[in-house]
Amino acid sequence: MSNSSKTALVISAHSADFVWRAGGAIALYASRGYAVSVVCLSFGERGESAKLWRQAGMTLDQVKTARRDEAEKAAEILGAKLRCFDLGDYPLRVPDETIMELADLYREIAPEFVLTHSLDDPYNFDHSLASRVAQEARIIAQAHGHRPELTPVLGAPPIFLFEPHQPEQCHWHPNTLLDISPVWDKKRAAFETMAAQEHLWEYYTRVALQRGVQASRNSNLKIRYAEGYQRLFPQVTEELA
Amino acid sequence: MSNSSKTALVISAHSADFVWRAGGAIALYASRGYAVSVVCLSFGERGESAKLWRQAGMTLDQVKTARRDEAEKAAEILGAKLRCFDLGDYPLRVPDETIMELADLYREIAPEFVLTHSLDDPYNFDHSLASRVAQEARIIAQAHGHRPELTPVLGAPPIFLFEPHQPEQCHWHPNTLLDISPVWDKKRAAFETMAAQEHLWEYYTRVALQRGVQASRNSNLKIRYAEGYQRLFPQVTEELA
Amino acid sequence: MSNSSKTALVISAHSADFVWRAGGAIALYASRGYAVSVVCLSFGERGESAKLWRQAGMTLDQVKTARRDEAEKAAEILGAKLRCFDLGDYPLRVPDETIMELADLYREIAPEFVLTHSLDDPYNFDHSLASRVAQEARIIAQAHGHRPELTPVLGAPPIFLFEPHQPEQCHWHPNTLLDISPVWDKKRAAFETMAAQEHLWEYYTRVALQRGVQASRNSNLKIRYAEGYQRLFPQVTEELA
Amino acid sequence: MSNSSKTALVISAHSADFVWRAGGAIALYASRGYAVSVVCLSFGERGESAKLWRQAGMTLDQVKTARRDEAEKAAEILGAKLRCFDLGDYPLRVPDETIMELADLYREIAPEFVLTHSLDDPYNFDHSLASRVAQEARIIAQAHGHRPELTPVLGAPPIFLFEPHQPEQCHWHPNTLLDISPVWDKKRAAFETMAAQEHLWEYYTRVALQRGVQASRNSNLKIRYAEGYQRLFPQVTEELA
Amino acid sequence: MSNSSKTALVISAHSADFVWRAGGAIALYASRGYAVSVVCLSFGERGESAKLWRQAGMTLDQVKTARRDEAEKAAEILGAKLRCFDLGDYPLRVPDETIMELADLYREIAPEFVLTHSLDDPYNFDHSLASRVAQEARIIAQAHGHRPELTPVLGAPPIFLFEPHQPEQCHWHPNTLLDISPVWDKKRAAFETMAAQEHLWEYYTRVALQRGVQASRNSNLKIRYAEGYQRLFPQVTEELA
Amino acid sequence: MSNSSKTALVISAHSADFVWRAGGAIALYASRGYAVSVVCLSFGERGESAKLWRQAGMTLDQVKTARRDEAEKAAEILGAKLRCFDLGDYPLRVPDETIMELADLYREIAPEFVLTHSLDDPYNFDHSLASRVAQEARIIAQAHGHRPELTPVLGAPPIFLFEPHQPEQCHWHPNTLLDISPVWDKKRAAFETMAAQEHLWEYYTRVALQRGVQASRNSNLKIRYAEGYQRLFPQVTEELA
Repeated sequence: MSNSSKTALVISAHSADFVWRAGGAIALYASRGYAVSVVCLSFGERGESAKLWRQAGMTLDQVKTARRDEAEKAAEILGAKLRCFDLGDYPLRVPDETIMELADLYREIAPEFVLTHSLDDPYNFDHSLASRVAQEARIIAQAHGHRPELTPVLGAPPIFLFEPHQPEQCHWHPNTLLDISPVWDKKRAAFETMAAQEHLWEYYTRVALQRGVQASRNSNLKIRYAEGYQRLFPQVTEELA
Repeated sequence: MSNSSKTALVISAHSADFVWRAGGAIALYASRGYAVSVVCLSFGERGESAKLWRQAGMTLDQVKTARRDEAEKAAEILGAKLRCFDLGDYPLRVPDETIMELADLYREIAPEFVLTHSLDDPYNFDHSLASRVAQEARIIAQAHGHRPELTPVLGAPPIFLFEPHQPEQCHWHPNTLLDISPVWDKKRAAFETMAAQEHLWEYYTRVALQRGVQASRNSNLKIRYAEGYQRLFPQVTEELA
Repeated sequence: MSNSSKTALVISAHSADFVWRAGGAIALYASRGYAVSVVCLSFGERGESAKLWRQAGMTLDQVKTARRDEAEKAAEILGAKLRCFDLGDYPLRVPDETIMELADLYREIAPEFVLTHSLDDPYNFDHSLASRVAQEARIIAQAHGHRPELTPVLGAPPIFLFEPHQPEQCHWHPNTLLDISPVWDKKRAAFETMAAQEHLWEYYTRVALQRGVQASRNSNLKIRYAEGYQRLFPQVTEELA
Repeated sequence: MSNSSKTALVISAHSADFVWRAGGAIALYASRGYAVSVVCLSFGERGESAKLWRQAGMTLDQVKTARRDEAEKAAEILGAKLRCFDLGDYPLRVPDETIMELADLYREIAPEFVLTHSLDDPYNFDHSLASRVAQEARIIAQAHGHRPELTPVLGAPPIFLFEPHQPEQCHWHPNTLLDISPVWDKKRAAFETMAAQEHLWEYYTRVALQRGVQASRNSNLKIRYAEGYQRLFPQVTEELA
Repeated sequence: MSNSSKTALVISAHSADFVWRAGGAIALYASRGYAVSVVCLSFGERGESAKLWRQAGMTLDQVKTARRDEAEKAAEILGAKLRCFDLGDYPLRVPDETIMELADLYREIAPEFVLTHSLDDPYNFDHSLASRVAQEARIIAQAHGHRPELTPVLGAPPIFLFEPHQPEQCHWHPNTLLDISPVWDKKRAAFETMAAQEHLWEYYTRVALQRGVQASRNSNLKIRYAEGYQRLFPQVTEELA
Repeated sequence: MSNSSKTALVISAHSADFVWRAGGAIALYASRGYAVSVVCLSFGERGESAKLWRQAGMTLDQVKTARRDEAEKAAEILGAKLRCFDLGDYPLRVPDETIMELADLYREIAPEFVLTHSLDDPYNFDHSLASRVAQEARIIAQAHGHRPELTPVLGAPPIFLFEPHQPEQCHWHPNTLLDISPVWDKKRAAFETMAAQEHLWEYYTRVALQRGVQASRNSNLKIRYAEGYQRLFPQVTEELA
């Protein structure tokens, strides 16, 4: 199978999560020809748009529009296709219909891998819910009796949990460090579409640099920028590398 | 670098551990041209040779000789080079000189990866000590000021912890499942050199089959025999696979 | 109280779980005169009947009928009474009415012990939900103000979590090994009613053998077949054995 | 800001939890001039009123009235304001409307700190749900886009998890020991309003004494009575003390 | 085998540990006819005799004599045989010779069960060392090649970890609650031989009462005094009770 | 007691650890009048001086001298007193005599708090050994019978574990975030004395910035630079803040 028919799936709670936490992986795989789909269950309109809300007369619709615009620009820079579900945030609630829709999406695109949030995040329950939903939709898509007409049934794509804002508080352990140096410029450019969260640009630049140093320490390579991931299931492999 | 100049290092407590726990990986990499060195810190002469001790008039030297012979035959079948340290078992004690010797070995062969015991084993303290020693020797070999004349300094070869006898009691979590089907026959043949531990042949055959089923479940592949490993450090990678 | 008035309760997600995971305990206690009730919250019709779904023209009702038939045969072999709730699977959803119904069942039969799924199972969210429901119904049945007319109030029957498919991935730790050798033949015969899941017959035979070896290692007994359980609450005892 | 304008918030599942688990902290801060609000999501009418239910002819309303009376007396003794939500117990269910109401309460009183249940309690799922709700309402109250007219937005008050009935079974780790000796008499007096749970008076007196001994051991002070808490988020501080 | 030929083994760091932590189990099994051996690796002369050291002119020998006398009186009350190793405390250091001596003791008495300290104790490294030594000596005694003339080889007696002073700080989880009500008077009487640690009499009386309440909660029994233990290895059983 | 008679103690493995990991706390407390003692068990001459070893003809003595000079300059900038033990590194080995010497130091200076390494560090066993030694010396200094002539006996100063190089791999959880903004300039200046490890200047500047953002998130304060610590024992307190 050529890369041009391969896909990857990112499932996130708010419209900017994919940029800070997985922008490098997205850009990297897009550059390799993968079709990368990014699902944003909400726009982060209530809980992650403080700067917009500080403007007088701001409305929920205006915030959502602004966040969607930013997310679309970021997705374009990274090379991904954005799918916004507009379920609301703080709190996010995910109806079973959405889980079924996501199961269908899994069946439809048959991703090579899945990226989503950490299992826990005591600062942000939307994040752990999105992670749970990403997992449950995958399980349903694996069931032979779930919409048997929608074939083929999903295999077992690996899930990687991307980095939360305060890793040690989220019981998140990076066991995978992905070199994103070749696409760092795109990730940084995507940051800069996020006018509502300018305070995070430098924070996540530093995250990428720290993970880069750590990637170098754990290999014999010189890596400048990296993203940390927690692989959720065992890696099935022919190589111990 | 061609495979023929690549190496791997296995550090184990007793003379048969490498067979049950890592025989597949050893045979696999030997078949790819790697020079695989197996260190046995003891012969398991006291604690893992019950069948021999049930023979009347048995002596420690006879047991050691018998276990060494078996281990050499097994190593030959798997394609590895055996290095016996004869430090005694139950309890194993490892002097600093041995740790230094192992650090030199790391420098000398510069392994692509290292296999050793789980961090804990409440049934067998020799195992966790061997694991600790394997790690500490690696750390020393990475120090620029340790025997600076012995170059090059060691990089950061990954360590994989092989499967203990009762995994859940040892806090061992397999995050890596290696397909060993192509070399299963060699692993099984190596089992059969271990006359002193015939009761384990079927046990570890079943382990390989169970890990094989699990490897299939965690991938889209059909895998019949597998070995489980716990990767100790983050994987540095260019691929999320 | 004679055994003939004693009971046990098994609460599982799908119609075959009780066979693979607890068939030995069920047959053992049935052979001792206990009335063992097995609750199947669903038939596993969507997610655990792949073989049936591969037949052309298969319908959900046909699958459910087939799985119910198999489960009834297996229950009969083991000596248990089957109670099917038909709530659907992949995903299982359990309404509060069912939890109340289960609380009533706890009150009615006053089980000596309860068997259910592990707390976590990243491969199967139906399993962890069934475990949660089994626990919550028990807690409600202990409340003096819950249906006070339905007496007596439930005491504190121990809960044992049976073995998931991939133990180390489910944070399941077996702290109890039950010798099932005397009833192994029944457990194996029950396996063979599960035509839809023939691939699991050998898998769970090997599980029983491995747990048997481990049971022998942790005792002075020779045990051929065993089942592993994780006791959830502290054991209250007069014996340190 | 003088203490007289400072507040604290306690969110608990049943009407007596705040007495046993946090009565000392409440009395201490009330004595310092804080306005302490205690939320009881239910009266514990079904699950924690066994003694009342043993009276012939008892009704749910009578139990609720009795538990409310006791809780009000206890709150008065401790110096707190009681807010009863009457959501029912065993099982407690919390609708999103209540979470929003709690978020408003957070905004309104802007507590200096929050006290709630442990994250887990396998004996009592109402407890862990109350803890989850306390956390989620806090997160929502921090969102700039949640009811932006209700200002100011909540900051980051620390959450402390109070002691469950069987600490080691609840994965609760006390990392904070609060000296409650100055207000012990009030806490004990509040116990004695709880006629329905007289068996707990001595139990929680002993808890206070044990935590007192431990507080002395972990400091250079002589402390007679203490309460244990698990701080949920990192402490931000200018002092290492 | 009649009880009169059965034995139990307690391995502790200091001369009073067996009283506070395991006095109930010791008295219980002594009352059942077991020969219970208590090993004290030191007298706790430096670290657990503060009251004695506050007397003017006190010497190490005087403290050791006083602690030995107390321990002997306590052992007599409980019905155990005391074996003092006098290795020194704070810090305790255990030479391999002592481990071998303990392995011989295991072989000689073939205990039905073993009691020792928790795996961790950040307040007292002597405790965790004693626990480690108890485990390692047991492993050595199980080795067929260790002093093969000393038969029979040790089987697999269960190890139970007794309660440390601050359980939650020691990662100690009680999974076994032993009813010691029948022998409580003896345990309390043994406390009162410990003149050097009078402050602990009430502390450990309260511990026994708390564990008693918890034992009642986890069963359908009324238990007044209990001891908590953490079973280290899986329980091999024919009963789920 | 005025600050001028108060002290703090830092126990580290190598000569630069105190700068990267605890330089802020040291400078902060020095600025408040505390006498801060920094113990370096080795110079990090073998394992943490790669840049020096890359110079031709370098000797161990030259490296040690260079590292000592740097450490002295850094200590002077921060305001601490340096105590170098010169025990060797990679591997560090600590004889009991040194532990006793450290116990005496605890007695002599009676620190208000202690800073040391994380409990685990799979990249650097010297670190975890230094942490263990710091703890054991403290325990010995608390024993009334240890050198009773050296009074007063140590109380219970809290221990804080400073940040390791790769926090998530070391099971280190920051539960304390110390605002070091007022002394950041000194910490950065101390970095710059470490010519041998210039690559770490920016790394640890980013660490301080990240912890600063996190400190702001966990409080209502604006904090630019922070250090993370893991408090080892429960905090005994009169305030829930």
